[in-house]
Amino acid sequence: MELLKQRILKDGTLENGNILKVDSFLNHQIDVELLNEVGKEFKRRFSAEKIDKILTIETSGIAIAAITAQYFNVPVVFARKTDSKNMDRDVYESSVYSYTKDRNYNIRVSKQYLNEGENILLIDDFLARGKAMEGLIDILDQARCNLAGIGIVIEKGFQEGGKLLREKGVKVESLAIIEKPVDGNIIFK
Amino acid sequence: MELLKQRILKDGTLENGNILKVDSFLNHQIDVELLNEVGKEFKRRFSAEKIDKILTIETSGIAIAAITAQYFNVPVVFARKTDSKNMDRDVYESSVYSYTKDRNYNIRVSKQYLNEGENILLIDDFLARGKAMEGLIDILDQARCNLAGIGIVIEKGFQEGGKLLREKGVKVESLAIIEKPVDGNIIFK
Repeated sequence: MELLKQRILKDGTLENGNILKVDSFLNHQIDVELLNEVGKEFKRRFSAEKIDKILTIETSGIAIAAITAQYFNVPVVFARKTDSKNMDRDVYESSVYSYTKDRNYNIRVSKQYLNEGENILLIDDFLARGKAMEGLIDILDQARCNLAGIGIVIEKGFQEGGKLLREKGVKVESLAIIEKPVDGNIIFK
Repeated sequence: MELLKQRILKDGTLENGNILKVDSFLNHQIDVELLNEVGKEFKRRFSAEKIDKILTIETSGIAIAAITAQYFNVPVVFARKTDSKNMDRDVYESSVYSYTKDRNYNIRVSKQYLNEGENILLIDDFLARGKAMEGLIDILDQARCNLAGIGIVIEKGFQEGGKLLREKGVKVESLAIIEKPVDGNIIFK
């Protein structure tokens, strides 16, 4: 998606020379106009799939999923990372390893919002090693939902998540795939 | 906002007889169509104000703020509750007391996304005692931004947050204001 790639080149920054930060338009400040283009592109790429619901994960996936859902006319559910007193006790749960935080965390979705046989599109901001996606897929399996596909804004093409998912036959659509940054340069696949 | 009130009556549940849960359309599963009506209504109520940016707080405010921002044509910034390795170190920070969790937590916004003199609309799902809003206002003060107003989806009219903010002259617009639930009934002000 050219508009997105141009924006990454313009406003993305590389921290410590290799960690791509897109806080200025995707992860902390959100450019809603850009997200609308992202949503349209996801709709175009998944136009052949039957989608009943979009599932994402807090926090950075939520705005992307909500804007995207408008083009599919479906509700969004987000998996919670934090335990909340107010949350249902009757949940699907999966453990996800975070490389950033070097620990496991649990993700949870109330059982009542995933129904057997529903076709679910997973949406997230980044795909790297794919651990969060594995956790969401585990939850879909528990709920006997069908994985319709995965829509990712930025895939780190130098990490194995996308490859592993595609080898399993999952339709993964990443709007920008980046190579491992070298000498402070962002290069797309 | 009648559509919202009808939805609260239809799908809201009272946990332990008094805690309103709207997980099925606002807080965990998100009805994006309803949020579009919420966004339009916020735009109608704040049509006289100059708004440069919308500020909300993770997690539940994000989808509401993102959908609403489309009607104001402005970016969204969300305050982070959790510390992230990837987050800027140069942040505005405020401490917020959570009655639900009975402890303080810090909220943070990168300094680069709030500029002096900007007119900020605060958006959130719930207003009860107003502690989260106080924290966001503290951050706006630090950034020398102007508080243009506060848009709330559901205000607990039996707690003091709304009253305190309005007494300070803040324009608070709540789309549904509920009375203290009695005998499992939800009553609007």
